[in-house]
Amino acid sequence: MSEKIVIPDLGSCTVPSPLRIDSHRSIESNFVHDAMYYRHPVEVGPGMDEATHLFEMAGARKELYFEPAKTKVAIVTCGGLCPGMNNVIRSVYLQLHYHYGVPAVLGIRCGYSGFSPEGSAPMWLNSEMVNDIHQRGGTLLGTSRGPVSPDIIVDFLERRGINVLLTVGGDGTQRGAHGVVEEIDRRKLKISVVGIPKTIDDDVHFVNRSFGYFTAIEKAKEVIDSAHVEAHCVHNGISIVKVMGRDSGFIAAGASLASQEVNFTLVPEVPFQLDGDRGLLAALHRRLLDRHHAVIVVAEGAGQHLLPPAEERDASGNLLHRDIGRFLRDKIKGHFAAQRLPVLIRYLDPSYYIRSVPASTVDSVLCDSFARHAVHAAMAGKTDMLIGLQHSVFIHVPIPMATKQRKRLSNAEWAAVVTATGQPDLF
Amino acid sequence: MSEKIVIPDLGSCTVPSPLRIDSHRSIESNFVHDAMYYRHPVEVGPGMDEATHLFEMAGARKELYFEPAKTKVAIVTCGGLCPGMNNVIRSVYLQLHYHYGVPAVLGIRCGYSGFSPEGSAPMWLNSEMVNDIHQRGGTLLGTSRGPVSPDIIVDFLERRGINVLLTVGGDGTQRGAHGVVEEIDRRKLKISVVGIPKTIDDDVHFVNRSFGYFTAIEKAKEVIDSAHVEAHCVHNGISIVKVMGRDSGFIAAGASLASQEVNFTLVPEVPFQLDGDRGLLAALHRRLLDRHHAVIVVAEGAGQHLLPPAEERDASGNLLHRDIGRFLRDKIKGHFAAQRLPVLIRYLDPSYYIRSVPASTVDSVLCDSFARHAVHAAMAGKTDMLIGLQHSVFIHVPIPMATKQRKRLSNAEWAAVVTATGQPDLF
Amino acid sequence: MSEKIVIPDLGSCTVPSPLRIDSHRSIESNFVHDAMYYRHPVEVGPGMDEATHLFEMAGARKELYFEPAKTKVAIVTCGGLCPGMNNVIRSVYLQLHYHYGVPAVLGIRCGYSGFSPEGSAPMWLNSEMVNDIHQRGGTLLGTSRGPVSPDIIVDFLERRGINVLLTVGGDGTQRGAHGVVEEIDRRKLKISVVGIPKTIDDDVHFVNRSFGYFTAIEKAKEVIDSAHVEAHCVHNGISIVKVMGRDSGFIAAGASLASQEVNFTLVPEVPFQLDGDRGLLAALHRRLLDRHHAVIVVAEGAGQHLLPPAEERDASGNLLHRDIGRFLRDKIKGHFAAQRLPVLIRYLDPSYYIRSVPASTVDSVLCDSFARHAVHAAMAGKTDMLIGLQHSVFIHVPIPMATKQRKRLSNAEWAAVVTATGQPDLF
Amino acid sequence: MSEKIVIPDLGSCTVPSPLRIDSHRSIESNFVHDAMYYRHPVEVGPGMDEATHLFEMAGARKELYFEPAKTKVAIVTCGGLCPGMNNVIRSVYLQLHYHYGVPAVLGIRCGYSGFSPEGSAPMWLNSEMVNDIHQRGGTLLGTSRGPVSPDIIVDFLERRGINVLLTVGGDGTQRGAHGVVEEIDRRKLKISVVGIPKTIDDDVHFVNRSFGYFTAIEKAKEVIDSAHVEAHCVHNGISIVKVMGRDSGFIAAGASLASQEVNFTLVPEVPFQLDGDRGLLAALHRRLLDRHHAVIVVAEGAGQHLLPPAEERDASGNLLHRDIGRFLRDKIKGHFAAQRLPVLIRYLDPSYYIRSVPASTVDSVLCDSFARHAVHAAMAGKTDMLIGLQHSVFIHVPIPMATKQRKRLSNAEWAAVVTATGQPDLF
Repeated sequence: MSEKIVIPDLGSCTVPSPLRIDSHRSIESNFVHDAMYYRHPVEVGPGMDEATHLFEMAGARKELYFEPAKTKVAIVTCGGLCPGMNNVIRSVYLQLHYHYGVPAVLGIRCGYSGFSPEGSAPMWLNSEMVNDIHQRGGTLLGTSRGPVSPDIIVDFLERRGINVLLTVGGDGTQRGAHGVVEEIDRRKLKISVVGIPKTIDDDVHFVNRSFGYFTAIEKAKEVIDSAHVEAHCVHNGISIVKVMGRDSGFIAAGASLASQEVNFTLVPEVPFQLDGDRGLLAALHRRLLDRHHAVIVVAEGAGQHLLPPAEERDASGNLLHRDIGRFLRDKIKGHFAAQRLPVLIRYLDPSYYIRSVPASTVDSVLCDSFARHAVHAAMAGKTDMLIGLQHSVFIHVPIPMATKQRKRLSNAEWAAVVTATGQPDLF
Repeated sequence: MSEKIVIPDLGSCTVPSPLRIDSHRSIESNFVHDAMYYRHPVEVGPGMDEATHLFEMAGARKELYFEPAKTKVAIVTCGGLCPGMNNVIRSVYLQLHYHYGVPAVLGIRCGYSGFSPEGSAPMWLNSEMVNDIHQRGGTLLGTSRGPVSPDIIVDFLERRGINVLLTVGGDGTQRGAHGVVEEIDRRKLKISVVGIPKTIDDDVHFVNRSFGYFTAIEKAKEVIDSAHVEAHCVHNGISIVKVMGRDSGFIAAGASLASQEVNFTLVPEVPFQLDGDRGLLAALHRRLLDRHHAVIVVAEGAGQHLLPPAEERDASGNLLHRDIGRFLRDKIKGHFAAQRLPVLIRYLDPSYYIRSVPASTVDSVLCDSFARHAVHAAMAGKTDMLIGLQHSVFIHVPIPMATKQRKRLSNAEWAAVVTATGQPDLF
Repeated sequence: MSEKIVIPDLGSCTVPSPLRIDSHRSIESNFVHDAMYYRHPVEVGPGMDEATHLFEMAGARKELYFEPAKTKVAIVTCGGLCPGMNNVIRSVYLQLHYHYGVPAVLGIRCGYSGFSPEGSAPMWLNSEMVNDIHQRGGTLLGTSRGPVSPDIIVDFLERRGINVLLTVGGDGTQRGAHGVVEEIDRRKLKISVVGIPKTIDDDVHFVNRSFGYFTAIEKAKEVIDSAHVEAHCVHNGISIVKVMGRDSGFIAAGASLASQEVNFTLVPEVPFQLDGDRGLLAALHRRLLDRHHAVIVVAEGAGQHLLPPAEERDASGNLLHRDIGRFLRDKIKGHFAAQRLPVLIRYLDPSYYIRSVPASTVDSVLCDSFARHAVHAAMAGKTDMLIGLQHSVFIHVPIPMATKQRKRLSNAEWAAVVTATGQPDLF
Repeated sequence: MSEKIVIPDLGSCTVPSPLRIDSHRSIESNFVHDAMYYRHPVEVGPGMDEATHLFEMAGARKELYFEPAKTKVAIVTCGGLCPGMNNVIRSVYLQLHYHYGVPAVLGIRCGYSGFSPEGSAPMWLNSEMVNDIHQRGGTLLGTSRGPVSPDIIVDFLERRGINVLLTVGGDGTQRGAHGVVEEIDRRKLKISVVGIPKTIDDDVHFVNRSFGYFTAIEKAKEVIDSAHVEAHCVHNGISIVKVMGRDSGFIAAGASLASQEVNFTLVPEVPFQLDGDRGLLAALHRRLLDRHHAVIVVAEGAGQHLLPPAEERDASGNLLHRDIGRFLRDKIKGHFAAQRLPVLIRYLDPSYYIRSVPASTVDSVLCDSFARHAVHAAMAGKTDMLIGLQHSVFIHVPIPMATKQRKRLSNAEWAAVVTATGQPDLF
């Protein structure tokens, strides 16, 4: 009834770990056995699936696959910016350098493009370089969107003698990493590829809470608070705040809960209609007549069915959404003009601001854990996996399993939003 | 092999819930059945206890024990200040008033002392009153330490016709609440008592993360950063920061991880010695010769074995610790004076600053959940229980089970600290 | 050679001030005589105008024109939001209520529109109401743009028996106030009208530093820092940040100085050209080839000569500028597309976010001073004036003198920007 | 009637400035002539001194004394930490390196002690080194208290071929700098010594607002807000906050004004008594009976007459005050114990926290100006002077004139505090 999730590895572990986490008399062994599992899901009850998965628990292994002194590690950061990328780079370096004694950590520049011969030259990391980066937004290494042929990447790894590749990125990045693993297998190389999930939208499966998310909702909340002040201080003020969230409404939902000033939250998971008595425009109209101000938070991927089909994709291959924020603004403007109710509409799009700030305290601690657990897994020769986080337990998840679908708001999470906003069903 | 944890209740639930969380077509039922359980622990592996506990999951019930329109609720906040108390009061009120339609919510003033005839008169809460309080530190209701006879409290509840008592406080407060339940039972009354765990030390059992904790470590981190600047900018600078944590080192540990600038973290769970080659003074001496500055973070309950026995207790009955911070400062001063190594020692004790700030974004969301879950449980007639949080699942925990012992740093948590500080074993 | 600037008043002052600022033995008299002047300008030197102006110094007068117990005061806030409006309202109320003992302070709702019979009803202020408003952005009273006939306003004042009108707003608002004074004079009424200058653009003449400005540049700096991270973390990233500043570049200049990460600052005072070897596009191109990223900060009123003439005006009658930010973005995009140099452009427009936040500490103190000095002037029967601030001395300035022209960046201020950005002359 | 204040210089200026601040067609010349003066004071009125001083205005000179390419500059930071020291170091370096083209800037380590042969070796500054330091508290160079013989310092300057010495520090530091000038004169050397006033207490004469002050009161305000919450949330809570201010109460006054929650502000300038009907204890007692909570802010140098005479001095020679904060706490505790009124006293001493944070936005801009003006003055061969700031005009002030006495709170400043706190005369 319980299925053990198998994590591929490069071979048996025979190198004793140099970590001294057993040397404190106060700590019993903190090494994690491969036979220790996290049972998923944690809930039991009527109507619930009896089947459970057992995931390997993340953590330092007593025996390693790679001999630290002879190991070369590369790290690459891909996709859109997200608070905490620098913290991850820093903790990866510190764990490898100071604790495992790995002599060489190579930073790939500007995403996967840094593997290609035309890309920027990679940089060897050192302590000086990473010392303060956790206090800055962005990524020391630079980033870019878009895939690069696994062939090119593995050529690079082979030529440079890299043993471990750590990929920091979202599901596109991790699917790319899986392609790299396949090419590595084809060439029968012994290179470990371990992913560190990075998604400001918080939509990677088996990752309960991804780093940067709380920083993002904290900043989004600040902007929503301003939007509320704007709407509240004029007669019939309407503020529309567009936030990130292509396929999942986690930021819209979390920021709405944090702010407690939002009247309508629109997310990709929950369709809504504009027109008709149950539609958004009618509900907004009622709200204005009643309270004379309103705040709308809309995730960038919400209400896509209302827009004419878009064909364009960004460099990562993500379908480019038509801009729901400006679409809503124009529809609302048109509605109230037609109804001759003077309103004052403010449109705020703080995405670039939100995602480029340094990580908050809680995210800093989270980044540190993700990074160190990825290093532990890689040194033990695990591969084709990423670090998951289920209910505050860090686990190993096969990349194909994690990237099969995206995480979406649960019923309970959406119900909390509906409770906080008091919004009616808009469909 | 799995033991179901039984939660006492006042009788069967026959009143349909007025919550409209099923009215959104987009949401399947979000009501929680009593037959839904959280399985504890979530880890399985060799050498681990096979026995598991099944805890009732928190959440709104479809049938209530109390008829909302006839229900009177009292809420009391006790013990030391903690970021988020006002958020809890506000969400309790909003959930009761707007969602359940409970007409009367009574705020008890200044902790349990507000139940006694000599205490400050209680206040009926209203929307105006709680509107902005989540943006302020402290508690609208005031607080105090120390028990009040259950007899006096139940007299008050009976006289005022209170049906539900919500107690916001730490384990002392909750033990007091259990006493109240016993007196209620003795008098065969139908009053529900539900606890909301409040502990800035984060030491309540079955509460993975208590509200206010992340706010506290964020502020503690800021102070530690200043302490590091102080130590770093002079020759042989030593900064000592004392933080809260009477029996558990969670704040010291979390703030050290967040800051990444701490060289020695001292917690109640891990004894250390001052003298001898393995002692703190020798390790500090070596650090100064090597790097010329050092930061020490010490939890208030650390190293108590080094101090002469104290007899005093505070008004809550907590044993008053001798001040380990000043003790350390004096010992360090003495050591380097004797060794004729000029040092500059800064001592910082930011406790009152840290605990009185408004809740951060992540804690705001957490407070909201604790508060609403407590209301759900109470309206369903549950009693003698508090809201627990295990691995991000909110559960019902019997008060006696939760207050039997205090939560302490796990091996893994302590190992993370030791990795971040690089400190040797000091015993 | 020194011209005394005459401030109109309603008549001689015969009522002794109730302020007890002389009661502290430690303070010599802090009352200000009308014969105390501030000499402007403060600089002397070759080629400088020998003529100086002597301005009345602001401050409490020992004798008042109005008897406090019989005085009714109205306060109105107009125009766009600005950090600190609530602080001003609060300090005006506290000074009038607690220190002068004025019994009635009327808050006009939503700008001048609140004087008209169709506007929202005014509200009597009380201590409860203003208690915490300084911690919130926006204005308790609401605001709006646009003039209302002086006739309607003076009708209102007469009907309500108002003795003092305090107008919080920019030069449009203060010109409106001057019209009110003329109507008051026509009707031979004894109503004092005193302005409190509010301009987030910091462009009111004889106001060295207006409240909200430092808060605005602090927030603008945060957004610019994010813009810098966005540009820096990709190859050939260009970030464009549009900030407020219709006729003066103070916010663009101040935020650029504070951030130290800006490469091109564009302000209304300094024309620039796009094309040609000296133009912005060529300079930006050179910067990209050299450093691969660039940050541009542009005031909304910059480069208007480049745009086709706009005809529209906002409700206050301000000429609506075509959007220079999006214009620049499109021109830059076109340039690099034509040159086949791939760039990544981010456009940020944080105006609504910046202006709606609570006042920072330094602005809080400034608001408090402006508010109290306005009350002092009005109680002494001064009228048709606003509170000026020259080189940290608060003064009385006749409204017509203050609204004749707008303040603009000085040479020295612009030179500091040019030094910080290193930008060439772009014309 | 107007006395021109003469600034010593090393000789006539014959080297043309390399600054290109005239190259922007939009800017008329921004060079400052020595014949441009700031007139002090700026107020005129009955009973005011007719005598005025004319101070040289700070700013870039068209002709320099030193040839930039051959100039060596040393910079030293002394005394207690203060927000903004790193900003000053950075702007000094950037101005010298990028704008003047000075090839060598030497950072002296740990205050004046870095000049002595036993001190830490100095460091040559470079762009990499100073790049991000403005985002960190403290000083890159380190600091220390205490004088070093001018002989030793001038030996160092001579041996290293230093042409300009910039001294960042308070009046003790600047008196030391004057001693260095005297020794330089004695040896007939051509070395310029220019001071940059650094005083978190804001007490240097002719410096209206010193850098770090606003950052300090912002942080002090945060702590006072917590102290207020602590006092307010219990019955008869009293919070005492001790802030910096040995001889002047600027921080206590500014933080009290910013917070608006303080009931008693105690400063060195204004004596108070503890006992008797007019004393602090009686006033506090009345406050508690009336409102049941109170906040006291006390500057470290207040009420020294109440303490037994102290003899100790710190390493800078500053008289060490007995601790007025703990003294007050004990006296208040004793008073209410004797009166059998139960109170809860919280004592907060946030000094080390406050002074070690990074500079706020407004202070960042201020630091930049102080630093660049000091460089301008030094390059023009001015010496034995510091940069003053009067009413937002930067001026040259002879060191002996600036260090003759300390700046103290003016009547108007103290009256504002008394208005905000509502406290009675306590003497």
